[in-house]
Amino acid sequence: MNVLIIDKMHDSIHGLLKAIGVNADYQPDITREKILQIISSYEGLIVRSKTYIDAEVLSRGKNLKFVARAGAGIDNVDMEVMNARNITLLNAPEGNRDALAEHCIGILLALLNKIHVADQEVRNGKWDREGSRGVELMGKTIGLLGYGFMGEAFAKRLQSFGCEIIAYDKDKSGFGNEYVKEVSLSELKEKTQILSIHIPLIKENRALIDKSYLTSFKRLDYLVNTSRGEVLVLEDLLSLLQAQSLKGAALDVLENEKINSLSSHEQSVFEQLVQLPQTVLTPHVAGWSFESYQKINEILTFKIEKLVEKRTDF
Amino acid sequence: MNVLIIDKMHDSIHGLLKAIGVNADYQPDITREKILQIISSYEGLIVRSKTYIDAEVLSRGKNLKFVARAGAGIDNVDMEVMNARNITLLNAPEGNRDALAEHCIGILLALLNKIHVADQEVRNGKWDREGSRGVELMGKTIGLLGYGFMGEAFAKRLQSFGCEIIAYDKDKSGFGNEYVKEVSLSELKEKTQILSIHIPLIKENRALIDKSYLTSFKRLDYLVNTSRGEVLVLEDLLSLLQAQSLKGAALDVLENEKINSLSSHEQSVFEQLVQLPQTVLTPHVAGWSFESYQKINEILTFKIEKLVEKRTDF
Repeated sequence: MNVLIIDKMHDSIHGLLKAIGVNADYQPDITREKILQIISSYEGLIVRSKTYIDAEVLSRGKNLKFVARAGAGIDNVDMEVMNARNITLLNAPEGNRDALAEHCIGILLALLNKIHVADQEVRNGKWDREGSRGVELMGKTIGLLGYGFMGEAFAKRLQSFGCEIIAYDKDKSGFGNEYVKEVSLSELKEKTQILSIHIPLIKENRALIDKSYLTSFKRLDYLVNTSRGEVLVLEDLLSLLQAQSLKGAALDVLENEKINSLSSHEQSVFEQLVQLPQTVLTPHVAGWSFESYQKINEILTFKIEKLVEKRTDF
Repeated sequence: MNVLIIDKMHDSIHGLLKAIGVNADYQPDITREKILQIISSYEGLIVRSKTYIDAEVLSRGKNLKFVARAGAGIDNVDMEVMNARNITLLNAPEGNRDALAEHCIGILLALLNKIHVADQEVRNGKWDREGSRGVELMGKTIGLLGYGFMGEAFAKRLQSFGCEIIAYDKDKSGFGNEYVKEVSLSELKEKTQILSIHIPLIKENRALIDKSYLTSFKRLDYLVNTSRGEVLVLEDLLSLLQAQSLKGAALDVLENEKINSLSSHEQSVFEQLVQLPQTVLTPHVAGWSFESYQKINEILTFKIEKLVEKRTDF
């Protein structure tokens, strides 16, 4: 079987794929143009997020049987066309959920303890203890919007912090356990003090979390987003932070992550956001650890192997 | 009973002490000179850390029955004189251990995930995903040097991160449980990948952790210090970081925390340390949360009440 890899992957991918009899063509710097030219020769495609796997790519890939996403989110793949063509989507949330959960706890604690601000101050010769006093997680109610692999991994880490953990997932039920309470959306909005977003970027979630959504939470103080920037209206978040209706936000993702080619309106929102000390900002790296870089390859290889066993058309 | 309070405390202290019949004289801005003048009128003294409660203060306080430390460490109190004079020391680690543990996890995750660096970069318009890739806690061996209130609270938080947690305390045994393994110092040095320091600043611990101590660890990559700066030789840590013998350090405490009046040698070490991205620095605020500010008062008041019941000389 021939597989085309169009993004940079950890070196381990070569040995792993070879071991299951896959002939991998590793072209991490390939252009979209070139992909369109050669894709018909491959039964599998492995991608990260650089290229949108849309109807055009899929139609040219007339022998494609699977697209493997070296990550969790599948918003860069046109699932309608995939389903219509019976092309299997493989992804690897099991590979980066631990990295994501750790990063998520990290940016939340940085926010609550002003670690990013204090670190800069100390470097600049300022030793402000009273100004660096933190807020404890213990005793707070943490609400999870979405309870897939990521929400679950985050909740698992939270269990030793003495919080109340509640979660709502519109597509899932029966997931409550000894440390996570499954709640309705209205209970989530009633009780949550710290909201962490773990929903996928599907059409209905785009710009879901706007001003009216956020203000419908009765006790919300802090927001964490490690899912996709496009689900959260940054301008609305900014105005709530500026008005101190929200106390802080930790954001690993932004609506537009091409921060050097923003529209003038986006630029204005971004510039105001980065002025605020009550934000923590990281460049879409929750889930990006040295360990996950390898674990993702192992998960994908395992899933490709299972797929080959299952599909009779290989 | 008359009690003198010589440091700033959360307002709750007034009502709490009044409720147990203590007459508190709140003088947060008092000078050492003035303390010496009036201390003889008080049976109790409540302090944070501004004033060293030494032989001179204690000898003037001829009616003192207790000194209460609004915090955990008791290195600013001369315990020899206290013991000789039968003055009881009360402290409140139960009040700030949760804040400390959360801060400790926070600075460790910030270090491993480069959150402090990435946050600055994003604010400056740099979106460097590959450069911000993190290292996972999961699967690592975390060694705790010292297993008092603080070590235990930190270990408790760590238990949901999938690490191996080992701890050595030269004064304590029998504390191992389902998630912490009690080990010898030699086993600690053999196995630890991330070392977190939780020992008090007593004479024998001063400058204990120097170059030879650190290099006696076989697999050590990262160091966290939220105990006292004086137990760790900063110059030695710096040289190991510069030589990349250690991958990083998260420090809430420094040998000399008066960072604007350092000696020229201290200044040189500090200036080199703050150049390194593989450090996270906070201004001695692990344990300083809005919640702990109040919990400390509750713990101290409870302990004062118990002491009054127990000592027959009130």
